[in-house]
Amino acid sequence: MAPPDATLHTVATGRAAETVAQHQNPQDLTFYSAWFCPFNHRVWIALEEKGIPYQYKEVNPYKKEEYFLQINPRGLVPAVKYRGKAIYESLVLLEFIEDAYPSHKPNLLPSDPSDRAHQRIWIDHIAKAVVPASMRLTMAQPNEQEKLETARNELYEALRKLQNEIKGPYFAGEQFTLVDVVIAPWILRDYVSAEHRGFKREDVGEGWVKYAKAIETRDSVCRTMSERDKAKVIYDRYLRGDAHSEAAKAVKAGRPIP
Amino acid sequence: MAPPDATLHTVATGRAAETVAQHQNPQDLTFYSAWFCPFNHRVWIALEEKGIPYQYKEVNPYKKEEYFLQINPRGLVPAVKYRGKAIYESLVLLEFIEDAYPSHKPNLLPSDPSDRAHQRIWIDHIAKAVVPASMRLTMAQPNEQEKLETARNELYEALRKLQNEIKGPYFAGEQFTLVDVVIAPWILRDYVSAEHRGFKREDVGEGWVKYAKAIETRDSVCRTMSERDKAKVIYDRYLRGDAHSEAAKAVKAGRPIP
Ligand SMILES: N[C@@H](CCC(=O)N[C@@H](CS)C(=O)NCC(=O)O)C(=O)O
Ligand SMILES: N[C@@H](CCC(=O)N[C@@H](CS)C(=O)NCC(=O)O)C(=O)O
Repeated sequence: MAPPDATLHTVATGRAAETVAQHQNPQDLTFYSAWFCPFNHRVWIALEEKGIPYQYKEVNPYKKEEYFLQINPRGLVPAVKYRGKAIYESLVLLEFIEDAYPSHKPNLLPSDPSDRAHQRIWIDHIAKAVVPASMRLTMAQPNEQEKLETARNELYEALRKLQNEIKGPYFAGEQFTLVDVVIAPWILRDYVSAEHRGFKREDVGEGWVKYAKAIETRDSVCRTMSERDKAKVIYDRYLRGDAHSEAAKAVKAGRPIP
Repeated sequence: MAPPDATLHTVATGRAAETVAQHQNPQDLTFYSAWFCPFNHRVWIALEEKGIPYQYKEVNPYKKEEYFLQINPRGLVPAVKYRGKAIYESLVLLEFIEDAYPSHKPNLLPSDPSDRAHQRIWIDHIAKAVVPASMRLTMAQPNEQEKLETARNELYEALRKLQNEIKGPYFAGEQFTLVDVVIAPWILRDYVSAEHRGFKREDVGEGWVKYAKAIETRDSVCRTMSERDKAKVIYDRYLRGDAHSEAAKAVKAGRPIP
């Protein structure tokens, strides 16, 4: 097999490329990003949503270059350098952005402590239930019908639980908040399991169809998304059961996704 | 097999029983707790550390009683009711306690955004690496030597990474902070794998031995811990490979721990 990075498109494309072009100058915050990564996409949406000044640097996380391991010893994007300090993990970074830029609106976390907890409960649900089921579905092979159906049903069930909490048009109502940021990249990429694994938004429910539409047309979400065809080589690897990312290995081994 | 709850001791004992006795009156915050649960123990330590007024209610989470599922649909302790609102998940609750009681000292999260992120990165490490490895070790059977050694080495490796970040005596230095709260319950229960699975604090490293001592003698930690012998029936079930908790089922199935 060719190394996973050999055929990888190396830069963002489409609307994301325009956004990259506008973020070339040094700033307090340097964003180490891979254009294709959904975890990474979360952080990018938050930065754009709040209009935070940042410098964009493209990383190929599969290469595990020494300079990057110095920033994130786990070797994963997203990562950030902020005034010389290294920070990583998408969910940690989202909280960091809220903490470090309190005057940049909108606030993505509400101010009421119970409402903040409600957000974090559903972010936890996305991390523990939605994302793993979605990966299991993409990685289930067409000749493993039972595994495939189980994964699809688990994904539907996890999304339905989330759907029941949506106030509309966004998770918390009129305001776009952190739960929306955290799920958005998976909504933008659900075409992969729709085309290859029988996933249908309608089968989650009507509320989900409407919600997904609201999310995928949000400006901060669109202008950080690259062209679909450039990601094909990556998803094909998952679809063939041939992905070697840390996440793919974890799903195969039945370990927590790193 | 008898139902998991049949032989379970039903109330806290030892120093924890004294603490329970002092928290019987209604307050803004009701703490739904199981005396034996390490996730639960995190929240209890934080409440005691900060001197927050709370009413303690013992729950047997294995029973899945209807009133409790109304509070936490996942059916797990810890859970809290705060002015009528239900909150659950230990890590969400720790953030909630910081958010809702800012004037109760000590602050368990530092105020600097980068330092807060550093805490959350290592909390994430405990959740994704330390806790699962520790469960795999307890659940590995003595006739599965390879599995047992792999789990033990993974636990050592995860703890060593944490050890390298400890400033001493506590994680962040003189201040007892959230990382200490999050790991403490596993330090207090490492006697189980020490007695049955060959785990030795010294084999993590000298720094770990010292740190573990500092944590297990912290007053908030001790006064929320019940007598060891009462927990024996629970740990024996894990050691025999006969545990039916949601976490045990997840570890067996290679799924994220709920
Ligand atoms: N838990 C991490 C996951 C990040 C992650 O898995 N990123 C992938 C790209 S989508 C990566 O860097 N992969 C490199 C590898 O697997 O070697 C987060 O939320 O930030
Ligand atoms: N992720 C949860 C885990 C809580 C948990 O697993 N609690 C256990 C007791 S230690 C429980 O309630 N178990 C009930 C069951 O497994 O049915 C947290 O951090 O709060």
